[in-house]
Amino acid sequence: MEHFADRILEAVRAKRTPLVVGLDPRLDQLPKPLFERISASSDPLSASAQAFEDFSKGVIEAIADCAAAVKPQSAFFEMLGARGVEAFEKTCDFARSRGLLVIGDVKRGDIGSTAEAYASAHLRNSEFVEMENIVAPDAITINGFAGLDGIIPFADAAQEQGKGVFVWVRASNPSAAVLQDFADAQGKRFFELLAEQVALVACEPKRIGKCGLSNVGMVVGGTAAPQARSLRQKFPQIIFLVPGYGAQGAAAADCLQFCKDNGSGALVTASRSIIYAYDNPRYKEQFGDNWEKCIEQACQDMKAELAAAWANR
Amino acid sequence: MEHFADRILEAVRAKRTPLVVGLDPRLDQLPKPLFERISASSDPLSASAQAFEDFSKGVIEAIADCAAAVKPQSAFFEMLGARGVEAFEKTCDFARSRGLLVIGDVKRGDIGSTAEAYASAHLRNSEFVEMENIVAPDAITINGFAGLDGIIPFADAAQEQGKGVFVWVRASNPSAAVLQDFADAQGKRFFELLAEQVALVACEPKRIGKCGLSNVGMVVGGTAAPQARSLRQKFPQIIFLVPGYGAQGAAAADCLQFCKDNGSGALVTASRSIIYAYDNPRYKEQFGDNWEKCIEQACQDMKAELAAAWANR
Repeated sequence: MEHFADRILEAVRAKRTPLVVGLDPRLDQLPKPLFERISASSDPLSASAQAFEDFSKGVIEAIADCAAAVKPQSAFFEMLGARGVEAFEKTCDFARSRGLLVIGDVKRGDIGSTAEAYASAHLRNSEFVEMENIVAPDAITINGFAGLDGIIPFADAAQEQGKGVFVWVRASNPSAAVLQDFADAQGKRFFELLAEQVALVACEPKRIGKCGLSNVGMVVGGTAAPQARSLRQKFPQIIFLVPGYGAQGAAAADCLQFCKDNGSGALVTASRSIIYAYDNPRYKEQFGDNWEKCIEQACQDMKAELAAAWANR
Repeated sequence: MEHFADRILEAVRAKRTPLVVGLDPRLDQLPKPLFERISASSDPLSASAQAFEDFSKGVIEAIADCAAAVKPQSAFFEMLGARGVEAFEKTCDFARSRGLLVIGDVKRGDIGSTAEAYASAHLRNSEFVEMENIVAPDAITINGFAGLDGIIPFADAAQEQGKGVFVWVRASNPSAAVLQDFADAQGKRFFELLAEQVALVACEPKRIGKCGLSNVGMVVGGTAAPQARSLRQKFPQIIFLVPGYGAQGAAAADCLQFCKDNGSGALVTASRSIIYAYDNPRYKEQFGDNWEKCIEQACQDMKAELAAAWANR
């Protein structure tokens, strides 16, 4: 399998955008026809999982031509237990069949053999290669709280499979700053130390693709704009996965600060503002009940907004 | 539902031990008869999940009388995808039917609505109460990297259901110290700051049970003995979940430093040293191929070892 960084860069170039669409299915926000099928069912759990799967497939069809990748959020699928996890797997499989790379937002993290087990679980275990019904993402997000021991098992498992890992380095929520900006006597902040630890793993020569980028990247919130420039300069081999564009309040220009001068090195994710576009009057008025069309148009608009912000940078 | 801290204290008193048995099923370490059934199956994925479930149930039967709770490790079940998650759910259900409290070791963590979704997923969502086939643990472990915004959704969801949450504060692996012992100019370390943030949530009066302990606890590695005394003194309302007893190298006396003078306030978990006791010559020679008996004896021995260490403290 080709190196993950080369694959994702190719996708960004082919689609002419760093836009990644987050798949966060919520029962109470599903398109009406999908929601009504659940109410009518005698098995609401299976019906809900089916609705999550159908919704995710609908989103994927709608955005396949104008996004570089999808980022299904495991938390929402896990709300439906094992049936939800099955829907997650089928969603990953379907996205791949439509030519989209899949970044599983699972934020797993632990130490030692448990980290290895999570890595196998979510990046596919060679032991189970023959079990074709287990479909794992092309990359996952992880939590690096345990340090190198907690990061390396994921990085190694990813590398063996031509896959990637994004370590959560800086969150964009207000309370994250209390912990993540905790500074030592020299002014170094905790997230900077964490980023350095990630880079120790990410910048090993064996992890660098032909494009010069590593298969081990970092998740840094798009609203953390002040940090963007310094992180980008300090870690030229890192791909930043930047959530928060759109509904979470990060502006296109802020997110694009994580890009290198050649436009590579950052993936900008938007979730709610695209996948629930049918609740947005702007699209509702134009396309009525055609929720897929609303999503497609919202994705094209965000792609255009990113392109305009890039041109005007 | 009674408060989680009162329930767990009752279990510790009834079983006369703070011992929690970790359920970490690994394919290559399963008892021979269970492993052979997988090799003979035409559907190795389903057979593996069934073997994990059967093994976990066997362990639960063997230790039900001499452990306060079980701690199934989600990572190992997730290796088998949706079928593994189903086995995890059935394991939780079976443990409860045998009168054991269940602490799901899931280490989930995220922000905002995603944290809420994880909390609902793993502590049961009232929306799905009628879906009786989803069985959630009595408590879960979480990752507090996102700070209060990432902790409160779990604490609130747990409280509504008479359940508990243990925030991972200090890992016992060597590389964890690089991040977790990162100190500010006053010498305060990162894990101490994190513990203070957890305590802000945990020590709210509404979260304290009749026994004086909170339903929001902390996970602190048993090999972090130097930290035990100061954490115990600083946070009298906290229950510490202490992994690492046995195979990971923590001694009984080290783990018991997290107990209060009355013996409450700590749960000591052992996994491999109990559940794979049939690979230990000490038990193999005595009980031969009877793996359940090996596990039962190992659990009784560790309970006795803890009791002796407590008496000699």
